[in-house]
Amino acid sequence: MVGASLAGATQVVAQPAPAAAQSPPELPWPYKPIDAAKAAQAAYDHYYAGGCMFATFEGITGELRQSVGYPYTSFPRYMLMYGEAGVAGTATLCGALNGAAAAIFLIAGGIRPERKELAFAMTRDLFTWYEQTDLPDFEPEVSLFDIVKSVSGSPLCHASVSNWCKAANAKSYSPERAERCAWLCGSVARRTVQLLDAAAKGGFKPTVALSAETQTCGSCHDHKSAREDTRGSMDCGGCHFTNQTTHSKLKL
Amino acid sequence: MVGASLAGATQVVAQPAPAAAQSPPELPWPYKPIDAAKAAQAAYDHYYAGGCMFATFEGITGELRQSVGYPYTSFPRYMLMYGEAGVAGTATLCGALNGAAAAIFLIAGGIRPERKELAFAMTRDLFTWYEQTDLPDFEPEVSLFDIVKSVSGSPLCHASVSNWCKAANAKSYSPERAERCAWLCGSVARRTVQLLDAAAKGGFKPTVALSAETQTCGSCHDHKSAREDTRGSMDCGGCHFTNQTTHSKLKL
Repeated sequence: MVGASLAGATQVVAQPAPAAAQSPPELPWPYKPIDAAKAAQAAYDHYYAGGCMFATFEGITGELRQSVGYPYTSFPRYMLMYGEAGVAGTATLCGALNGAAAAIFLIAGGIRPERKELAFAMTRDLFTWYEQTDLPDFEPEVSLFDIVKSVSGSPLCHASVSNWCKAANAKSYSPERAERCAWLCGSVARRTVQLLDAAAKGGFKPTVALSAETQTCGSCHDHKSAREDTRGSMDCGGCHFTNQTTHSKLKL
Repeated sequence: MVGASLAGATQVVAQPAPAAAQSPPELPWPYKPIDAAKAAQAAYDHYYAGGCMFATFEGITGELRQSVGYPYTSFPRYMLMYGEAGVAGTATLCGALNGAAAAIFLIAGGIRPERKELAFAMTRDLFTWYEQTDLPDFEPEVSLFDIVKSVSGSPLCHASVSNWCKAANAKSYSPERAERCAWLCGSVARRTVQLLDAAAKGGFKPTVALSAETQTCGSCHDHKSAREDTRGSMDCGGCHFTNQTTHSKLKL
């Protein structure tokens, strides 16, 4: 454009050139306080358009597109549709949790160890809260059905769905189950905004402890234990010790 | 900038203004063929820098930043560090799979039903392949250890890690286990590029079937079945029917 007319140059300013070489800003991206109630409602509103992961991420970050603008305006949020129903319907990780974890890292995380550790601690707290809490604890302004609550006992889509189906005496592909998941996106978005708000004020502390049972399992199987043959913070009991199974005999 | 001098306007062109109001292009983003071997090596190379989800996503998409440029240059890829060790260390969904699923949706997916269904079918095929295949089947140019293979039987981080620990007689926080996960990122990135290549040529077809056992489970518990009380395509046997458990008695 060197040597172009002033009129031509003005057009460039009016219609910004594609940011061809522009890298995104480093993490964390700028934060402004988010209205938790609005985030929850927005997550619910977007569930039927793009599934659970997209909806929860959009609930948390949508307000920032207005209040902060760029770089949030540049993010391809529809990518997060991939997490629907535990990622592409595989029913692994709950999409509400997957979307919230992505949003937490974008807004509060970063490659520096102290930022990464903060985002990870917030994410783990969210996941454990989700496992142990009677959900959904959010109700939208207008809803398709009344929805009963259940404790998932697991961050996994299919386990969370199955436990709710049992509590509600409903089927896993019913419209009631879809509505329950839409409410759940609202619950997870609201909780996440509360965690972000606490972190922004410098006051985030984990609020939920692993179950006593899971701590016992970890003492023999997790980091720096005698066996050290697994890892993580999922509640063990949900899959490993149902009423049909017991622990193998311990050699004490 | 209207009325600014030509010199000033030229500066704007040389240093593009922040894309404050610019929305990202719709999905799918432009695709150019990716070198699968280079993608695998790049995924391995990035594992120690940002964890499994980041590494796998970067392995698949890094070449596109050069060959396509924008919009890939604008994507905040470090956000995907959130998926490390099954999301923030919770050991739920394998980060290599989480990162690959995100990349597939960005490159081959979209909000239109036919694009979404294609990306979902590719993702499900990748997940089932991961569950059933002796991995890692990629070996980097230079490696820290020799790594034995194992069948994960699950798309979950902690199950995949535990099954490998058993096969390798190694601990879950050992440097050998980390190296195994770095190789695994290479395997998943390479497989994903092969799926993207097939889809770009219009020839993607699912190549891996659910286990016979899982199909049997689904016939009573999944979509349109008598009970319809769960969903998904995770292999059931990995958690539900180990050598310690059996199915409750069927009323036939």
